[in-house]
Amino acid sequence: MDILKYQSDFLSYLRTKKLVKEPKNLYEPIDYILQIGGKRIRPMLTLMASDIFSGDYKKAMPAALAVEVFHNFTLVHDDIMDDAPLRRGHKTVHEKWDINTGILSGDAMLILAYQYFENYEPIVFQKLAKLFSKTALEVCDGQQLDVDFETRNDVTIAEYIKMITLKTSVLVAAALKMGAIVADASEEQAQHLYNYGLNLGIAFQLQDDYLDTYGNPENFGKQVGGDIMENKKTFLYLKALEVSNTSDKEKLLQFYSKKQKNNTENNIEKVGTVSAIFTRNNIPEYTHQLIEYYTNKSFESLAYLKISQQAKDGLLMFGKNLMSRKV
Amino acid sequence: MDILKYQSDFLSYLRTKKLVKEPKNLYEPIDYILQIGGKRIRPMLTLMASDIFSGDYKKAMPAALAVEVFHNFTLVHDDIMDDAPLRRGHKTVHEKWDINTGILSGDAMLILAYQYFENYEPIVFQKLAKLFSKTALEVCDGQQLDVDFETRNDVTIAEYIKMITLKTSVLVAAALKMGAIVADASEEQAQHLYNYGLNLGIAFQLQDDYLDTYGNPENFGKQVGGDIMENKKTFLYLKALEVSNTSDKEKLLQFYSKKQKNNTENNIEKVGTVSAIFTRNNIPEYTHQLIEYYTNKSFESLAYLKISQQAKDGLLMFGKNLMSRKV
Repeated sequence: MDILKYQSDFLSYLRTKKLVKEPKNLYEPIDYILQIGGKRIRPMLTLMASDIFSGDYKKAMPAALAVEVFHNFTLVHDDIMDDAPLRRGHKTVHEKWDINTGILSGDAMLILAYQYFENYEPIVFQKLAKLFSKTALEVCDGQQLDVDFETRNDVTIAEYIKMITLKTSVLVAAALKMGAIVADASEEQAQHLYNYGLNLGIAFQLQDDYLDTYGNPENFGKQVGGDIMENKKTFLYLKALEVSNTSDKEKLLQFYSKKQKNNTENNIEKVGTVSAIFTRNNIPEYTHQLIEYYTNKSFESLAYLKISQQAKDGLLMFGKNLMSRKV
Repeated sequence: MDILKYQSDFLSYLRTKKLVKEPKNLYEPIDYILQIGGKRIRPMLTLMASDIFSGDYKKAMPAALAVEVFHNFTLVHDDIMDDAPLRRGHKTVHEKWDINTGILSGDAMLILAYQYFENYEPIVFQKLAKLFSKTALEVCDGQQLDVDFETRNDVTIAEYIKMITLKTSVLVAAALKMGAIVADASEEQAQHLYNYGLNLGIAFQLQDDYLDTYGNPENFGKQVGGDIMENKKTFLYLKALEVSNTSDKEKLLQFYSKKQKNNTENNIEKVGTVSAIFTRNNIPEYTHQLIEYYTNKSFESLAYLKISQQAKDGLLMFGKNLMSRKV
């Protein structure tokens, strides 16, 4: 199990799939968003799962590509909805082209993702496409909940966890399960791996939320403090409301009741003050604890997997590395 | 073969699929666009094809629904891109809700369309999903060409026909072929039916273009003259450029070089003058001739179909009715 090899092989495979065909205005943005980078975590998981169950990870390449193209489709459409200027340190598709291009190229990516499954024979194809459709709809549900939360003032931490489970974790989980399906693992074994991924995905998103406030601006790729500027009701914010004193709580509610224009002094002040409130209320510590809780919950699924100890150690290591990441 | 029965049975089936689940803000717009009407031509074609080859059209109901949901997905996203206020005499989704809702609900519809194929066993599932993905990508290509044509001044009639083939006809053709697939027709027979649909679809779109200028405003559903207001380079416009004298040609180029605000007097004058130019240059006659050309080309495919004379007569009648429609 060589995680870096999965990544480099996936990147080579991705390069061979360079998609510039006619009409160019539709396919160039797809190629752009796929090539500007990203950690490629989801396709690596698909390859790793396939390797674990069959010793053959190359067979899972088209499924891994489907997962990565789908993930990038969600980024393109979400960035339109969030009016985000940057992605992976580059202009977002709708900024570089326009909103209509972002919509249509995104649509084409969702369809392309399904097409990659055509590399598999009918029974595997159907299993993959079913899991994919279920997952993709859950991701849409999660995105809608995220949008709904913007205008709600009674979001609970439990609802937040449910939202990130749908918006982020189910795809991490499905990426793993797809690798297991390609490798012909039993449904029961594939499901244990899914559960490993589901809890790891929650921990991953909590880590992302943490980095959004506490990451290093020089290498984070997105704008640090973006969630605060956007009034996102993340775990950090919801937990701070729960544990802070009346004065801090009022300040938070005040700041989150309106949006400032991007990159204005007011916004920089807002990010500074809100993150100071988070820090003095020990929110980083609470967040780390919850990340650890979900990481451990994830690792519990490993006990049910009938795979080599080496493979289990690999999954353990992968989870630990993911949680200690800085970007 | 009872075409009205296909339609009424499909509408009953659609009502049983009423999709209002959580999160409501995602699924209510989907239900809205599916229930406000439409001619339901594509699902009727799927049911008709299945009936022709197997005598059983109910089995094709989920495939018919997939086609209709996909068609409505394209309307939701296209209406955002065209900034269209009305669809079937009702507010468009992004007007009734907002653009983000239109994007996300549309995405969910595309996924739902794939899910309906899960009603079929793996081999049929894969055939349907493959044809569907190919078709859906072609529709995206067609939409992109349509957008590209807006800023091009050298669009030819051949390019226009290619664009409407992708944007409209391939879905009409695929709707028929899906019915044939569900009914287990041979690939060769299914392909002849596809070709019937492909040419019929071109004739259908040309008829749509004709009605956009010459339809009765009281029952057309869309704004009559909308294509002229939007400077759409339809066959009517391209043919008029080809056959008109220098003076008319200059007027056309002048009118199509800028857009007027919706529903202003200037716009009403524009529609009046441009349609007068079309009329005095015999464009209705040229359009009818081309519609007849593609309708006849469509009917030629019937000779290759190994089906009853009654079924052939039905397909012939369906095509003729479609071309004499006024809405």
